[in-house]
Amino acid sequence: MKISIIGVGLLGGSFALGLKSVEEGHYFIGVDTNDDHTTLAKKLGIIDQSMHFNQAVKSSDLVVLATPVNVINRQLIEALNLLPKDAILIDLGSTKSAFNKIVADHPKRDQYISCHPIAGTENSGPEAAFSGLFKTKQIIICEKEKSNKVLLDTIVGIFKKLDMHITYMHSEEHDRHIAYVSHLSHISSFALGLTVLEKEKDEKSIFTMAGSGFSSTVRLAKSSPNMWAPIFKQNAINVSLALDAYIKQLQKFKEIIDLGSEEKSYELMEKANEIRRVLMGLEKG
Amino acid sequence: MKISIIGVGLLGGSFALGLKSVEEGHYFIGVDTNDDHTTLAKKLGIIDQSMHFNQAVKSSDLVVLATPVNVINRQLIEALNLLPKDAILIDLGSTKSAFNKIVADHPKRDQYISCHPIAGTENSGPEAAFSGLFKTKQIIICEKEKSNKVLLDTIVGIFKKLDMHITYMHSEEHDRHIAYVSHLSHISSFALGLTVLEKEKDEKSIFTMAGSGFSSTVRLAKSSPNMWAPIFKQNAINVSLALDAYIKQLQKFKEIIDLGSEEKSYELMEKANEIRRVLMGLEKG
Repeated sequence: MKISIIGVGLLGGSFALGLKSVEEGHYFIGVDTNDDHTTLAKKLGIIDQSMHFNQAVKSSDLVVLATPVNVINRQLIEALNLLPKDAILIDLGSTKSAFNKIVADHPKRDQYISCHPIAGTENSGPEAAFSGLFKTKQIIICEKEKSNKVLLDTIVGIFKKLDMHITYMHSEEHDRHIAYVSHLSHISSFALGLTVLEKEKDEKSIFTMAGSGFSSTVRLAKSSPNMWAPIFKQNAINVSLALDAYIKQLQKFKEIIDLGSEEKSYELMEKANEIRRVLMGLEKG
Repeated sequence: MKISIIGVGLLGGSFALGLKSVEEGHYFIGVDTNDDHTTLAKKLGIIDQSMHFNQAVKSSDLVVLATPVNVINRQLIEALNLLPKDAILIDLGSTKSAFNKIVADHPKRDQYISCHPIAGTENSGPEAAFSGLFKTKQIIICEKEKSNKVLLDTIVGIFKKLDMHITYMHSEEHDRHIAYVSHLSHISSFALGLTVLEKEKDEKSIFTMAGSGFSSTVRLAKSSPNMWAPIFKQNAINVSLALDAYIKQLQKFKEIIDLGSEEKSYELMEKANEIRRVLMGLEKG
């Protein structure tokens, strides 16, 4: 297959490396507005060649949009317009319902398959890409009934070769859920980073006392604003609701702490401990 | 040395195992209200013998209080009252200023050394203890000038053998800082767990989409309520201020998201990215 990776960063690069590691014979074309990314991606063996967007899409069997979601917004129609007959267009963006609306009436709608791999790290760029990123991770495919069955089977085959678990879902359900289990945890981490950095201005040595617990909760605050600002905008309604619910939980904690009630904070934390069940499931994969 | 570990859990157990791994010849006595803990600790080679509190303290060269902070509150005076001449009392609690106040006027005040190792995991009990927990971690010693110099040197020597980095600090500064870099991140995680568990009631499959980012931010929600409820009570004023600051940052995020401003959320996240500097420092140790 001739495969175009649009946006040669963590996700696009890892998709290419992952597929190379399990199947030979594909040819990878890289498209990126940042020339350093395509140059580096060639050096790292992620892509075979770099091209401009139009030319790449026109000569591909599979086009993978792995750009920030505001860019996918625009590239979806551009790519469908140019997409050869029988070629496949997928995107790997972290929001899904806007994209499904944008393509809804396009004559080549059935050549688009709406995907979201639940995989990532707090790092970005081709230097962050690695072949095992997608292995054993979930891939969510939205509104599959609107995609051509044969093309869908091809894509599902590729994800299975990458050893991914496939879940089908409506795009609106996807966006509602992902606000809670991904977008919210990023904001909780960004806000934690900001809070402590702000405090550091008065208390220079505050980070002497930071341990592994702090590192783990604040790790996502390293994530790329380029990627996340458009996601929060695109999923604003769901993210805002999730934030509301989160702030309420924090306010409940604060009230209980201000009251000095050990018993009530114990109860809250005991309820939160139920997350063990969830994390155990996640660790099993 | 005859060393009594009061509270044979994650911290007390790891202190004993760590010291055993670097120096022979110590004799470890375990004290725990939970008999299963002392039995298991003996099986795991953490302690040599179990004893009652009074008897253990009276026959020790070093007493280590590794119980929840509300229990330390009570045990400090009990232990000082019984402590042999030239023996040392330390505690490993996560708050420090209340303890320093409690012992302030005790005739044996100078035999107490107020310690907080910045080390831990979300697990608890003797089965969670491991010899490397303290290695390369910070240990904060508070109000050292109130401790006997010779006894302080002995304790510092032990922490150095455990390969720990020692920082001296006033107990009130300790409690102010730790509220931000430890207590707050635990609450952020407990509240995140509660928020998503609450949402799960309506959306059964929500955790299908949880990835490594979610796991990392919610990991601390597995922590022991027994340990944390007394900490939040004891450091209530500082924790409440930290929570206030955190909630304000989250509200700022929510306003920006509600406004739909990609630019402003970009700016916030770019500021939060400064946490890279801190995390790099922490990883270097």
